[in-house]
Amino acid sequence: MASNSQSNNQMKVVTGEFGYVLQDVPHLTDYIPDLPTYPNPLRSNPAYSVVKQYFVDMDDSVPQKIVVHKDTPRGVHFRRAGPREKVYFASDEVLACIVTCGGLCPGLNTVIREIVHSLDYMYGVNKVLGIDGGYRGFYSKNTITLTPKVVNDIHKRGGTILGTSRGGHDTMKIVDSIQDRGINQVYIIGGDGTQKGASVIYEEIRKRGLKVAVAGIPKTIDNDIPVIDKSFGFDTAVEEAQRAINAAHVEAESAENGLGVVKLMGRYCGFIAMYATLASRDVDCCLIPESPFYLEGKGGLYEYVEKTLKEIGHMVIVIAEGAGQELLTEKDEQDASGNKMLQDVGLWISQKIKEHFSKQNKTLTLKYIDPTYMIRAIPSNASDNVYCTLLAQSAVHGAMAGFTGFTSGLVNGRHTMIPFNRITEQQNKVVITDRMWARLLSSTNQPSFLLPKVIDEAKKEVGPSTQLLDDGGNLGNGNLGNTNTITGMK
Amino acid sequence: MASNSQSNNQMKVVTGEFGYVLQDVPHLTDYIPDLPTYPNPLRSNPAYSVVKQYFVDMDDSVPQKIVVHKDTPRGVHFRRAGPREKVYFASDEVLACIVTCGGLCPGLNTVIREIVHSLDYMYGVNKVLGIDGGYRGFYSKNTITLTPKVVNDIHKRGGTILGTSRGGHDTMKIVDSIQDRGINQVYIIGGDGTQKGASVIYEEIRKRGLKVAVAGIPKTIDNDIPVIDKSFGFDTAVEEAQRAINAAHVEAESAENGLGVVKLMGRYCGFIAMYATLASRDVDCCLIPESPFYLEGKGGLYEYVEKTLKEIGHMVIVIAEGAGQELLTEKDEQDASGNKMLQDVGLWISQKIKEHFSKQNKTLTLKYIDPTYMIRAIPSNASDNVYCTLLAQSAVHGAMAGFTGFTSGLVNGRHTMIPFNRITEQQNKVVITDRMWARLLSSTNQPSFLLPKVIDEAKKEVGPSTQLLDDGGNLGNGNLGNTNTITGMK
Amino acid sequence: MASNSQSNNQMKVVTGEFGYVLQDVPHLTDYIPDLPTYPNPLRSNPAYSVVKQYFVDMDDSVPQKIVVHKDTPRGVHFRRAGPREKVYFASDEVLACIVTCGGLCPGLNTVIREIVHSLDYMYGVNKVLGIDGGYRGFYSKNTITLTPKVVNDIHKRGGTILGTSRGGHDTMKIVDSIQDRGINQVYIIGGDGTQKGASVIYEEIRKRGLKVAVAGIPKTIDNDIPVIDKSFGFDTAVEEAQRAINAAHVEAESAENGLGVVKLMGRYCGFIAMYATLASRDVDCCLIPESPFYLEGKGGLYEYVEKTLKEIGHMVIVIAEGAGQELLTEKDEQDASGNKMLQDVGLWISQKIKEHFSKQNKTLTLKYIDPTYMIRAIPSNASDNVYCTLLAQSAVHGAMAGFTGFTSGLVNGRHTMIPFNRITEQQNKVVITDRMWARLLSSTNQPSFLLPKVIDEAKKEVGPSTQLLDDGGNLGNGNLGNTNTITGMK
Amino acid sequence: MASNSQSNNQMKVVTGEFGYVLQDVPHLTDYIPDLPTYPNPLRSNPAYSVVKQYFVDMDDSVPQKIVVHKDTPRGVHFRRAGPREKVYFASDEVLACIVTCGGLCPGLNTVIREIVHSLDYMYGVNKVLGIDGGYRGFYSKNTITLTPKVVNDIHKRGGTILGTSRGGHDTMKIVDSIQDRGINQVYIIGGDGTQKGASVIYEEIRKRGLKVAVAGIPKTIDNDIPVIDKSFGFDTAVEEAQRAINAAHVEAESAENGLGVVKLMGRYCGFIAMYATLASRDVDCCLIPESPFYLEGKGGLYEYVEKTLKEIGHMVIVIAEGAGQELLTEKDEQDASGNKMLQDVGLWISQKIKEHFSKQNKTLTLKYIDPTYMIRAIPSNASDNVYCTLLAQSAVHGAMAGFTGFTSGLVNGRHTMIPFNRITEQQNKVVITDRMWARLLSSTNQPSFLLPKVIDEAKKEVGPSTQLLDDGGNLGNGNLGNTNTITGMK
Repeated sequence: MASNSQSNNQMKVVTGEFGYVLQDVPHLTDYIPDLPTYPNPLRSNPAYSVVKQYFVDMDDSVPQKIVVHKDTPRGVHFRRAGPREKVYFASDEVLACIVTCGGLCPGLNTVIREIVHSLDYMYGVNKVLGIDGGYRGFYSKNTITLTPKVVNDIHKRGGTILGTSRGGHDTMKIVDSIQDRGINQVYIIGGDGTQKGASVIYEEIRKRGLKVAVAGIPKTIDNDIPVIDKSFGFDTAVEEAQRAINAAHVEAESAENGLGVVKLMGRYCGFIAMYATLASRDVDCCLIPESPFYLEGKGGLYEYVEKTLKEIGHMVIVIAEGAGQELLTEKDEQDASGNKMLQDVGLWISQKIKEHFSKQNKTLTLKYIDPTYMIRAIPSNASDNVYCTLLAQSAVHGAMAGFTGFTSGLVNGRHTMIPFNRITEQQNKVVITDRMWARLLSSTNQPSFLLPKVIDEAKKEVGPSTQLLDDGGNLGNGNLGNTNTITGMK
Repeated sequence: MASNSQSNNQMKVVTGEFGYVLQDVPHLTDYIPDLPTYPNPLRSNPAYSVVKQYFVDMDDSVPQKIVVHKDTPRGVHFRRAGPREKVYFASDEVLACIVTCGGLCPGLNTVIREIVHSLDYMYGVNKVLGIDGGYRGFYSKNTITLTPKVVNDIHKRGGTILGTSRGGHDTMKIVDSIQDRGINQVYIIGGDGTQKGASVIYEEIRKRGLKVAVAGIPKTIDNDIPVIDKSFGFDTAVEEAQRAINAAHVEAESAENGLGVVKLMGRYCGFIAMYATLASRDVDCCLIPESPFYLEGKGGLYEYVEKTLKEIGHMVIVIAEGAGQELLTEKDEQDASGNKMLQDVGLWISQKIKEHFSKQNKTLTLKYIDPTYMIRAIPSNASDNVYCTLLAQSAVHGAMAGFTGFTSGLVNGRHTMIPFNRITEQQNKVVITDRMWARLLSSTNQPSFLLPKVIDEAKKEVGPSTQLLDDGGNLGNGNLGNTNTITGMK
Repeated sequence: MASNSQSNNQMKVVTGEFGYVLQDVPHLTDYIPDLPTYPNPLRSNPAYSVVKQYFVDMDDSVPQKIVVHKDTPRGVHFRRAGPREKVYFASDEVLACIVTCGGLCPGLNTVIREIVHSLDYMYGVNKVLGIDGGYRGFYSKNTITLTPKVVNDIHKRGGTILGTSRGGHDTMKIVDSIQDRGINQVYIIGGDGTQKGASVIYEEIRKRGLKVAVAGIPKTIDNDIPVIDKSFGFDTAVEEAQRAINAAHVEAESAENGLGVVKLMGRYCGFIAMYATLASRDVDCCLIPESPFYLEGKGGLYEYVEKTLKEIGHMVIVIAEGAGQELLTEKDEQDASGNKMLQDVGLWISQKIKEHFSKQNKTLTLKYIDPTYMIRAIPSNASDNVYCTLLAQSAVHGAMAGFTGFTSGLVNGRHTMIPFNRITEQQNKVVITDRMWARLLSSTNQPSFLLPKVIDEAKKEVGPSTQLLDDGGNLGNGNLGNTNTITGMK
Repeated sequence: MASNSQSNNQMKVVTGEFGYVLQDVPHLTDYIPDLPTYPNPLRSNPAYSVVKQYFVDMDDSVPQKIVVHKDTPRGVHFRRAGPREKVYFASDEVLACIVTCGGLCPGLNTVIREIVHSLDYMYGVNKVLGIDGGYRGFYSKNTITLTPKVVNDIHKRGGTILGTSRGGHDTMKIVDSIQDRGINQVYIIGGDGTQKGASVIYEEIRKRGLKVAVAGIPKTIDNDIPVIDKSFGFDTAVEEAQRAINAAHVEAESAENGLGVVKLMGRYCGFIAMYATLASRDVDCCLIPESPFYLEGKGGLYEYVEKTLKEIGHMVIVIAEGAGQELLTEKDEQDASGNKMLQDVGLWISQKIKEHFSKQNKTLTLKYIDPTYMIRAIPSNASDNVYCTLLAQSAVHGAMAGFTGFTSGLVNGRHTMIPFNRITEQQNKVVITDRMWARLLSSTNQPSFLLPKVIDEAKKEVGPSTQLLDDGGNLGNGNLGNTNTITGMK
């Protein structure tokens, strides 16, 4: 990966001494030569009069991997985000648009607010359109005029004032719409699929040779986007999840053989479940998609539930929505065609455990809590508010400076611009052979639920990605995979 | 600094290729040869059976500075924290003690809880004493027996179950007490002064040749400790501060010429004030110790207040407790001897502004809010809970592995062990010539309150460090005031 | 009802001038003559030294009905609760027990705490047992020793430290256990069924001629107990329900044709749903058990949903768990035998609406939220805390004064003792022909969903009670469904 | 008071059988004969189609006093609030205005919202003006047009969107302004002084013979308005005060000889302090204006603080802002002319206690918390939201029905209309010889701080009213200080 041959429309690779690799993002000048530049308006902004080196040095980069040995090569870096001395758009030339896609996530309104404010207060841009209701709003709906005043208080509300939807991506129609309306900066807030869509839009725009900057802000409450430290809203979600866990704990403690089951978000990864469990300390078992488990027999879930209830008298299970999907499709379950209930892993596991205890004529008081929508819909907390602000500013600085085809992302605590392909090529997952998961197991005292052969495979499986991350060949250390650095988790 | 000559009792400096510098922490074997070692009990812990490389490689280090250019030398690194293959204490040999010093901070109880739990569940250590009421508890009080059961729910309460106090440090008496009681692991939770105390205790223990590991966990709600990304409780404090700011905003909006003044913590640095302001967006002026201001005349505070009230009709000022101290000691104020009110900068600034408006017969409805104790006393939020857990675990892993004279700290999102002298030699401060402060000024629209000559001086003062950050020209320094990386603020 | 002939073991009826009727509670002396009395220990309590008339006059009573005309007869009254000059138990003679039954409700721990504290601090009683896990704890479990210290902080936790369960009532075994253990004061906290059980226990104790006072504290988060103003925990539940409604509103607003459905507690009555709706103002439709509705056709739910989505674009439905039960048992649904999902009216109505829109190929984004256990498990708020305290004190004062077979209840804002039969003979329900429900309809703008003939019947059914309330024509009845006076709702 | 001779412009007294007295409110027809009436538009409102007897019977009244004996005369009653069959304003004839005066209180925006909504949705009135910034807004400012849309979400915000101020009452100018603008319904939200102002405005309007209804909604976070059960916002305030008390408790517990002092609202009465103390259970001493205390000597505050710290090691004092005012004006304190600090009783008491301990060279860690503005500025909770709604509706129903010179108030859980003079003639106060205060003393274990002679006097002073409450001997009075029935406190 660290060779020049990888440079393409998506990513420009630059190498340096001692194994330094920069995976750079595209720029409008890559396909439109001779674009005029303008001095950055921040230069005359009184707020910045005191700042010594406000403009980011063009050479600044941030390493992806920072646990090193004294002889480790330097590895993959990303371009640092921030204002540049020269911009490629005149203030009155810009017509920006913002679109939000996919499920709700705390902080969406803050990101919208701050893009609008940054464009206006920092760059004098006052033409910003909101696309209504996700991608399909590009071609099927009226737009919403976004001014600093309109967005002034929206960060105190949950949801997105622009509305959102899933799917609806029709590249040609979207780019036609962008071209027809004269939009030249496109800010796309959404998850994995949305960023892939943004990548295709960028490719088509490049193909048409349009002077349109495409910037993504990754949104995923699940934290399943790779490379970046964490996604906005994650912190708020983990905090809010504590309410549900507390309630499950109280219900369980107050009943004979009380079992509280809490389903948390996480279709493909268990970060929310894992961190909510670590933060709470009231959880006795945490089940996530990355760590397969089984119900029956020695070392299985039933055994552990029975043991825990016998010893403590009550128990709390946190289960990520994507956990145990391989069990849900068991043959006997498939017969109940169309039984939607089985799609919900929380209801499913609750039903299975109840049946197990019922067969044995054992008392069980099970309470199932699904706080998903109560978590997604709250406004972002203070920490996410600041984070969203800086993500939005980085996107705006990047677009104004002519960068395109990038996503705004935090890497090792520094704001960077990352090529789309790096964040869409794989998903961030909890690495169950890593220390963080071991900490969780240690904190809940739950068994690993892994058969010996699965353990061996698991250890093998994550080999490649770690190698990738380290690229420097050596080490095998830093068994990242989940490079993400939430609250300093490494 | 980056030379071997700096190696001393406090810090061992190791250099490597391409400018690599490791500022290593002391180890018991530095002054006690031939200590026996034992295999880490985690080896047989079922929770860790699946972990591939659970034990931290002895060579793992984390760079302090990570914004680089492709030819930047590699710079200062710290030793990575985490469990080691060999430990220097047998489980039943350990008698640990924990002490909390200084003011309250969200998360204290979580740190206490997790030290006790880690020692017990990970290392089989079940003799842990709580020292009652800060340093003076070492020689004047009974101790508290800490078991996993005793501490099980304490993380849900604010404050510290051990009690705390300021001062009371008498090195000889403390080390006598440690020696007399047979304590061999000392966990010291406290701020700047407390860590200096810990450093002296470590020196005395070393002098006496005792096999006693001294580990610090830095505690400062103000975030004024250098090197580390942020201190625990800070996140919770910023979140809770939003309530006070919201209230001030509501009061201000509902009155004619309404002015809400909120005093926040920050004796020597304005981090809480700055981040609370950035997170809220309802603040029109943020005053911090690092940025001097003046009241009268053009560009002064009075002028700005008048202008804002005239334009918007209401205003919110956030002031850090240490802001404007140079004004408080003005000659005319000193005459009012014994007037304690003036010691409180919030009351003082409120009084001054009221007087100014009163002189001009202008209406002003000023409401002053001091939420300090309501912020300090709450339990830590989910994010800080996880953070505290890992800080505690890192301290325990370090002490068990024989390291001493170190503080547990997060650097660039990775847990490290840092020599005491690096975190006590200076204080972390908001760098007002850096981008973060510019972002704040831009967000509040407040003037910089700086006279031209002050601006020049400010730029000169921090020149080298900023320069370092951007181009790495001046290695070995890295003593940036604001190296800290809160929520990815760089 | 207002005649002496109604006097029986459950209730003693006393009449007075101008239509005054007192429905009095039993007393130990009703069946045990010549019981010794003691001066109330409060007499020498310093806290009461300043109180002029601390002891309740034996003649004090509180009217059930207080909307009157100038010539209305005086109607039904209850005996005022509070300390009496003489008590029928010596302090060291008392062995009290407390049991909690049924589902969780905010405030259970506060009631437990205050019974223990009142017995100890007011009456010098220090032998109090907690029965573990509901009624069946009387004969199958060990008891928990309750001291003021043990219960000191429990009001800050949700749930019940005694544990709870449903059913398990075996009168003989329970009274045997009471007799065997020498218990002479029984405090029973629970809902409708539990109070019926308490009533039977009292009858059996009376039959056996035991000197055992039986006092009930009515617990029902649904507020379905008649006569009393409101049940403890109700206020907290309505407050907490706002979170779910807010979330549903945010989800609905952010989607195209967004529909948020929130299920709230209320098996047989819709008080929580009604008050949560009135408090929120974000609800477009509130469905409760008392008001039947239909789905199809003109004036049905589907039509209203379609209309609302068309006009506003989003909608929130709040549904009480017992609403529409007559629809759930429709023939076509009964075929899906064992489909537990249909038991949950929230899932059922969500499914039905989805199917309806799906048939018409209309977009619908439906989010279903069930916050039940997150509401039940929280600690009581300040208002409920004070309320629980006084309920507990009234029960203790009553038992010490020799009253038995009574429940502690608030009537028109005054604490009273009510005969068991008055609170178990029927359930409190929302009267849909009353003004409060009209206010709700007016606030949501929803149709009444009533067919003309249903309206006529509804008016007839509750005719007498409404008439009573307005003109007092039919004294002595007062069995109004919604006599309750929550937050001054009449 | 209970005779017809009391009938005047402020109150019409009607008597009935068995001692029944109705203290009725004025009506426009009292001074304008032959006013036309209209059928109530609610008659054709679909929401009310199902309501049997929606319109309040003209004879409905609510007793002020409800603890009775079987031969007690019936006593003072107030007119029940609610819609009447006939209204005295045509919908398109109405021009209403709303004004908010005095300090902030949770719920102000809800009351404003509901007046506007009730006028529009119930009565088809769409001309409503908001007066800007309190009474002085009548003659010095522009008005704000209030529509249902404008006020739709304001109940989720604290403060008042109309702005508020103290004073500024100039009767003639206000009535001129009302007359000039053609306003014919005036809704005045404010406390004691404001309601007195409303009373004078009503008198002047009556004098001029104008068809203008004047309705008050009593607002006082302190709950110092007599007759009514409680004032809106009080519940929210008590709830929010828990945060401050919790913080004080944590601070006190964590320090050696820790003393937390919390100042709560209550200039002339201690209701918030009393209820917050009862709800919390962490308070060791509650000081209120109604109960004088002294510092020095036996039975004084210093002695109690010393004793408590010695026994428990920490302590929390809650002090109402008006407590101990007689001590603040001690001679030695008056010398420090202009020392504003002494006006704040919380700072004063903190200073005094510190000095006392300092003199004795005893350790004391005192933390003072003043949460006043953080409490006042929050939005109302669910309970207050519903309460505010009904208060607003009662005011609107009353004004539409031609009543004037009345305040909307809850009496014994029923909504009534009360003559202005009854709520302004005295203030509601905690009666320290009543059971509620005894409960508080018992809960905190604090001494009464009363000298024997003060106790005697106290008992004498309130003698008649207490007597009344208990035996009804003295009808027509009923002016009990604490008639109020918060959360069923009697």
